[in-house]
Amino acid sequence: MGFTDLVLVAPRSAGLHREAEAVARASNALDVLGGVREVATLGEALEGMTTVCATAMTPRDFGPPTFAPRERLPGLAADGERVAFVFGGERHGMRNDDVYRCHLCLSIPTDPLYGSLNLAQAVQLVAYEWRQALGGFDVEARTPPAALADAMAVQGVIDHWERMLVQIGFLDPGAPKKLMARLHQLFHRAKLQREEIDILRGIARAAEADKAGKPPSR
Amino acid sequence: MGFTDLVLVAPRSAGLHREAEAVARASNALDVLGGVREVATLGEALEGMTTVCATAMTPRDFGPPTFAPRERLPGLAADGERVAFVFGGERHGMRNDDVYRCHLCLSIPTDPLYGSLNLAQAVQLVAYEWRQALGGFDVEARTPPAALADAMAVQGVIDHWERMLVQIGFLDPGAPKKLMARLHQLFHRAKLQREEIDILRGIARAAEADKAGKPPSR
Repeated sequence: MGFTDLVLVAPRSAGLHREAEAVARASNALDVLGGVREVATLGEALEGMTTVCATAMTPRDFGPPTFAPRERLPGLAADGERVAFVFGGERHGMRNDDVYRCHLCLSIPTDPLYGSLNLAQAVQLVAYEWRQALGGFDVEARTPPAALADAMAVQGVIDHWERMLVQIGFLDPGAPKKLMARLHQLFHRAKLQREEIDILRGIARAAEADKAGKPPSR
Repeated sequence: MGFTDLVLVAPRSAGLHREAEAVARASNALDVLGGVREVATLGEALEGMTTVCATAMTPRDFGPPTFAPRERLPGLAADGERVAFVFGGERHGMRNDDVYRCHLCLSIPTDPLYGSLNLAQAVQLVAYEWRQALGGFDVEARTPPAALADAMAVQGVIDHWERMLVQIGFLDPGAPKKLMARLHQLFHRAKLQREEIDILRGIARAAEADKAGKPPSR
């Protein structure tokens, strides 16, 4: 999510972030691992931060107020706060004393029957929400935006299909019922693109040619 | 995130979801694993769905239009669509043919320098966004909402502190500068709670007693 300032507080062994498993699991994010700071205390990790968010699922009496990330993070971003997110270990979460020193507590709104997420999932979600609060990244379009066919082109297809449907015996001009009305609605709802006009007209021509016993004239 | 309809398409071995590693990694979500359907084809997995969302990071020509989850999912939820989310394997993602049959493509807006998330992270995020689009879960407050002190109580504290600060020699009544104005602002910004009024008055009393050489009278 584009964040690189990762601090490990009192890791179980020095250089944990350089171990093979950490590198393997980091996927492409080797620069994040490379920039890890290891410190002895939470206080050192928080230097320069103005708002410290705990992430804790179990209730703490007298702890800071609890918010869902989407509820609170946009305000922090708008205020220009320098925000730290503190995560506890996978098994036991955060210590009470560490929660108390935080300004607020973030809780990810999961199914109340299940409670807390895995650590990696929680980190992913909070990082995502903070990135969104900061304005987010763009999504790269996979397909260039399509040029929509104009109404006249769509009507041309519908007229062509009407003639073809009569020829192949699907539409009875004497008792058309609502077939053409429904085809209108279907083609309008589909928001036809220009290239699709050619495809649909090609289909109509092929059906007409087939009916007439001619080879298709694509 | 409260979803239980998990379908595995052509898993590399039958009964994959009952293997020990799957159970261990599922944490508490054993009912999700217990309800897994294994099917041979994507088509079987999609039975009953009305909108099928691909998740794919690599561009596909002629694929469905791409959206960020937060951009598109609220609309699908409002329309009452029955939505399936299709994820590819960890290493290679989705096959082109599988992407083509989807109605739209979801792309998680990550740092463009990195690209795609791990599969587990992507599933977590999409499930979270879909849950949010459906209305979300509540966040359980850790601490009951505090009763705020009213303005008269806060003023009482400030007056008490002013007397105390004069007694201990911190505030010079002849040259008070802006000290009391700043304490007003600080205490107002802190949105003092009723119990905190007692704490702050206790501190002032203790300082006065200490100055007078008496034992603190809490």
